[in-house]
Amino acid sequence: MLPQWNRNPPFNFTRASHVVLTSRDLSASRDFYTQVIGLVLTEETPDTLYLRGLEELAHHSLLIRLTPEDQPFCQSIGFRVSDDEDIEKALHHLRSNGLSVSELDVPHQGRTIRFVDPVGAVIELCSSMDLAQRCMREFHLFKGGSPQRLDHFQVATHDVQLATEFYSELGFRLAEYTAGNGDELWGTWLERKGNTHDLVFTNGRGPRLHHFAFTTPDAQSLIHACDVSGSLRAGDIIDRGPGRHGISNALFVYFRDPDGHRIELFTTHYQFIDLEAPPIRWEISDPRRAQLWGFPASRRWFFEASEFEGAPVSEPLLRADPPTLEAYLART
Amino acid sequence: MLPQWNRNPPFNFTRASHVVLTSRDLSASRDFYTQVIGLVLTEETPDTLYLRGLEELAHHSLLIRLTPEDQPFCQSIGFRVSDDEDIEKALHHLRSNGLSVSELDVPHQGRTIRFVDPVGAVIELCSSMDLAQRCMREFHLFKGGSPQRLDHFQVATHDVQLATEFYSELGFRLAEYTAGNGDELWGTWLERKGNTHDLVFTNGRGPRLHHFAFTTPDAQSLIHACDVSGSLRAGDIIDRGPGRHGISNALFVYFRDPDGHRIELFTTHYQFIDLEAPPIRWEISDPRRAQLWGFPASRRWFFEASEFEGAPVSEPLLRADPPTLEAYLART
Amino acid sequence: MLPQWNRNPPFNFTRASHVVLTSRDLSASRDFYTQVIGLVLTEETPDTLYLRGLEELAHHSLLIRLTPEDQPFCQSIGFRVSDDEDIEKALHHLRSNGLSVSELDVPHQGRTIRFVDPVGAVIELCSSMDLAQRCMREFHLFKGGSPQRLDHFQVATHDVQLATEFYSELGFRLAEYTAGNGDELWGTWLERKGNTHDLVFTNGRGPRLHHFAFTTPDAQSLIHACDVSGSLRAGDIIDRGPGRHGISNALFVYFRDPDGHRIELFTTHYQFIDLEAPPIRWEISDPRRAQLWGFPASRRWFFEASEFEGAPVSEPLLRADPPTLEAYLART
Amino acid sequence: MLPQWNRNPPFNFTRASHVVLTSRDLSASRDFYTQVIGLVLTEETPDTLYLRGLEELAHHSLLIRLTPEDQPFCQSIGFRVSDDEDIEKALHHLRSNGLSVSELDVPHQGRTIRFVDPVGAVIELCSSMDLAQRCMREFHLFKGGSPQRLDHFQVATHDVQLATEFYSELGFRLAEYTAGNGDELWGTWLERKGNTHDLVFTNGRGPRLHHFAFTTPDAQSLIHACDVSGSLRAGDIIDRGPGRHGISNALFVYFRDPDGHRIELFTTHYQFIDLEAPPIRWEISDPRRAQLWGFPASRRWFFEASEFEGAPVSEPLLRADPPTLEAYLART
Repeated sequence: MLPQWNRNPPFNFTRASHVVLTSRDLSASRDFYTQVIGLVLTEETPDTLYLRGLEELAHHSLLIRLTPEDQPFCQSIGFRVSDDEDIEKALHHLRSNGLSVSELDVPHQGRTIRFVDPVGAVIELCSSMDLAQRCMREFHLFKGGSPQRLDHFQVATHDVQLATEFYSELGFRLAEYTAGNGDELWGTWLERKGNTHDLVFTNGRGPRLHHFAFTTPDAQSLIHACDVSGSLRAGDIIDRGPGRHGISNALFVYFRDPDGHRIELFTTHYQFIDLEAPPIRWEISDPRRAQLWGFPASRRWFFEASEFEGAPVSEPLLRADPPTLEAYLART
Repeated sequence: MLPQWNRNPPFNFTRASHVVLTSRDLSASRDFYTQVIGLVLTEETPDTLYLRGLEELAHHSLLIRLTPEDQPFCQSIGFRVSDDEDIEKALHHLRSNGLSVSELDVPHQGRTIRFVDPVGAVIELCSSMDLAQRCMREFHLFKGGSPQRLDHFQVATHDVQLATEFYSELGFRLAEYTAGNGDELWGTWLERKGNTHDLVFTNGRGPRLHHFAFTTPDAQSLIHACDVSGSLRAGDIIDRGPGRHGISNALFVYFRDPDGHRIELFTTHYQFIDLEAPPIRWEISDPRRAQLWGFPASRRWFFEASEFEGAPVSEPLLRADPPTLEAYLART
Repeated sequence: MLPQWNRNPPFNFTRASHVVLTSRDLSASRDFYTQVIGLVLTEETPDTLYLRGLEELAHHSLLIRLTPEDQPFCQSIGFRVSDDEDIEKALHHLRSNGLSVSELDVPHQGRTIRFVDPVGAVIELCSSMDLAQRCMREFHLFKGGSPQRLDHFQVATHDVQLATEFYSELGFRLAEYTAGNGDELWGTWLERKGNTHDLVFTNGRGPRLHHFAFTTPDAQSLIHACDVSGSLRAGDIIDRGPGRHGISNALFVYFRDPDGHRIELFTTHYQFIDLEAPPIRWEISDPRRAQLWGFPASRRWFFEASEFEGAPVSEPLLRADPPTLEAYLART
Repeated sequence: MLPQWNRNPPFNFTRASHVVLTSRDLSASRDFYTQVIGLVLTEETPDTLYLRGLEELAHHSLLIRLTPEDQPFCQSIGFRVSDDEDIEKALHHLRSNGLSVSELDVPHQGRTIRFVDPVGAVIELCSSMDLAQRCMREFHLFKGGSPQRLDHFQVATHDVQLATEFYSELGFRLAEYTAGNGDELWGTWLERKGNTHDLVFTNGRGPRLHHFAFTTPDAQSLIHACDVSGSLRAGDIIDRGPGRHGISNALFVYFRDPDGHRIELFTTHYQFIDLEAPPIRWEISDPRRAQLWGFPASRRWFFEASEFEGAPVSEPLLRADPPTLEAYLART
């Protein structure tokens, strides 16, 4: 059943802001994200990389911390709210709803809080950041996929229904969704910024970060990222694509970074602003949902993801699996 | 002096919605807009064309009415507000401010009002439209420039300062601007939907509609529109470009339709959401402002535009002219 | 061992000219080749389709004949020679070498002969064709992948060494090759027209036509063909890609037509004219050979192909198989 | 009148090989050619730059020598012939025809001769070069316009008829031409390598090198060169375009290097191999000839060019001028 959308939420999420990952080798991460993906390195310390897209004014949209451990994690995904007042409202609202919220002091970020949402994902909210330079007019700096800005997150969760209800109440609006037998939600595409998604939930062992996504200006940039990945002998890191999603209509490619974290490069979505526009429903059995061109994704794409640090993982409530590349090849 | 931005406006403009033009030959208009630009024809009557972009769900974003007169006009530019309640608020607010507002009954549009703004431009506000089909996944229908959606309007006005103050009070936020001697505003780029502009004012004889703009997915689509324009022997209609605007960073091309109305095709802007992002200032004397690659626009581009039907035109208060192509060529 | 290249061959092959296929349903073929691929239909009879690329002046480069049989075939692949005198020279040379050669009367073709080469493939030679119109400046006619011209053929053969020796003696020059243990030839890329290949032989059950290839102007056109294939619900027909070949450096995608014949769309090769340029050697075990980005091709791509009508198929002499997608997925 | 094409020329021109320019500032030249155009620097000495395209195996296709003088020159344009034997044949043939020919010792070039052609242009012929690396698979090295290879030269000459006759006798074949009143030749596009041109002559003060041209993989690369030119504040150097030539159907842009030499980046031509294909004729008065999209070139483009060092310049025999941008703007 589709959750009710709250048009007047308690505070104002504005956009996906940043993701915090851990890495076992910052040098390998830096090379991958600056050369293949093409992000700009805002700042580097012995144990942290701060990266951003070419058009981003904010100090960082990707923060990578060195870990001495064997397993890399996602520490949190971050959203922007309008201002400090929103942070106050969020603090109050989330605590009133029984969630654990802490205040954080993160370099280069304005007021920042962190909470664990009802499906276990670790979320940061932040009101502002230090300003860097927009590099969008510095075309001689464009590399790899020429990523413009962080756009959205996809989180695998054991309970898509619960996650969707929580964020709908916080003002996220459903643009598209995948449903299985009856009306059980298998995946939900939720938005705040006026196009199809800022936050996606899909059914699976979770909470785990399936991927974060940066926009590219066009198909050519996306293909150039693949080519650079190949020419730097980093070709194994292409996880899926290029292809065209039915959902959201984006041209996409997915890479795995040196720690296995998954990043999507994609051309932008369609606009989704008018209130009379209904969400689009897709059947889980429809392969065009995920790939308009035919080939489904591999099991690796469906079942591997980055755990949130400190968050226990649960088995999915729903047992409807989408078609996989392995099954597709066996059939043909 | 930069006007103050009102973050809590009296009603909620959401986006540029539609433009209403008159034409002396609907058949020529239809051919141009469907073949060269690539818009979808939603509906056609003996005296009206309703057109929309490939991803647009709303019934029309370009409405063309047959005129028996010699001079074609812009009848109005239209914006969407959230809902009927917003229309009520707008009616009340605009009348309270002494503006003349009328209610309109336009086929396929929900509640619609029309007013004349303080610089004389004719504006429609509309709360909803009949739904058509999004054609963005019907790639076999893509033609010409594969236009996705209406994005913004540029209006020439005799008083950029006044226009900017009016719309700032209504919640439009300044993203970029061109200033002449001292801080006199020559052009202002104002936005509502989270990227650089939905409404632009530039100094000149006005009010006149300088152009309306549709997004294209990429540079290739924009070039294909030029090629189709050339292969259909419609090449004279290219008015400027292709080129890269410094302002907003868009790759652009401008066409003139068979009645002389100007339409821009452009790749999308950068995101402009965070409150701490300051507007970008450009000097009127800086040619990179308008064209990062060097060539300025011709006098024709600067000085020709579509008058609003019934609206008297005033000479600009500011006498600072930008560099023109004619002057550039004479110099070299 | 690499065969000796004969710089002064007995007659002058100039380029790949046309391919002749049979189809069980001409209407399905026509829709696929004109809508998804984007070829121009020069002429149609109840049992034949004549198609050509957008820039091609010659009457046809793809000829499809209706078959009442269950199995579709390739009837022949055709090359152009300079002129009628070359046809005479070819007749004489091929017969002197004990090959069976017949003269053909094909509508719209100048003098034409057909022979069976030493590995069993059926080859046509043709000196000229009726002239159609080049449509390359008719951009409003561009559809699907906007194919420009027929470029090359790939033939699976049981004996790559023998095939390569035969065509080297006829003036084809080796640009790149794949070798297995020692120096056994697994695949050879042979050219006449000054870039990497007009004719390719790869090891496998043969003779069978693996694919024929048309050039596209750019990556965008190639992706548009995929998108149109998806939007016309013809997505299963994508057989491989898009991807980047290491060999020849082409961006590629492979489709299967309604009869299972395989067609490649690809961006063009690099120039290969200078005599001092050595052929490039690739190891069969190197996956970058076939796909610079990582994913190998599926078994279907490697092992399915179109038989030549009337030509018995032999098992390959060489038993070295390349890495497959199935094996790659099982490993990861 | 169209000259007779000699199909069996006395020696074998294979392709445009290299151009030799002088520069007053090698550092500025290096920055322009490596950053904006994107050429690879093979080698650098205190007074020479050797540059090549991304796919070129030959040591250099652009050779720039430091000059202490105020005026930069083109020293020669170079073509490849098949081998040393061809150099011998050329020496003999050219001297037999009364032309002055000298042997040159140029580093990294095989046997090389230089002659002055009947219209005064200085031509080098060269049989081979030292081999560098093809960088076409090193996508991380792609910059600016990602130029692949040198393609052709355009030379302004006082006598297009004479120049065309001379090169037709040497085996160059006419693919397209512009004619004025009656059949006077205003411009001729001549080819050797199987597409529309390797050498172009246009009417004007000459001999002067109008431009040399490198291919780019697609429209996006060409636009990226413009963007980089703009972002490096080198935007004044765009001399014309982007646009689409009617002749040859190429998408083009022209830059001026820091010494004023003109370089074209363009997407490749159509294939021109079959003997039955007639040359295409364009009227000098047809603006689609030069620019399918409408805007003619400026006077600067038509009338500025690089003189050949030591070659006196003559006024053109033909006084038919093409439409210019200045005239076009004055008219509209």
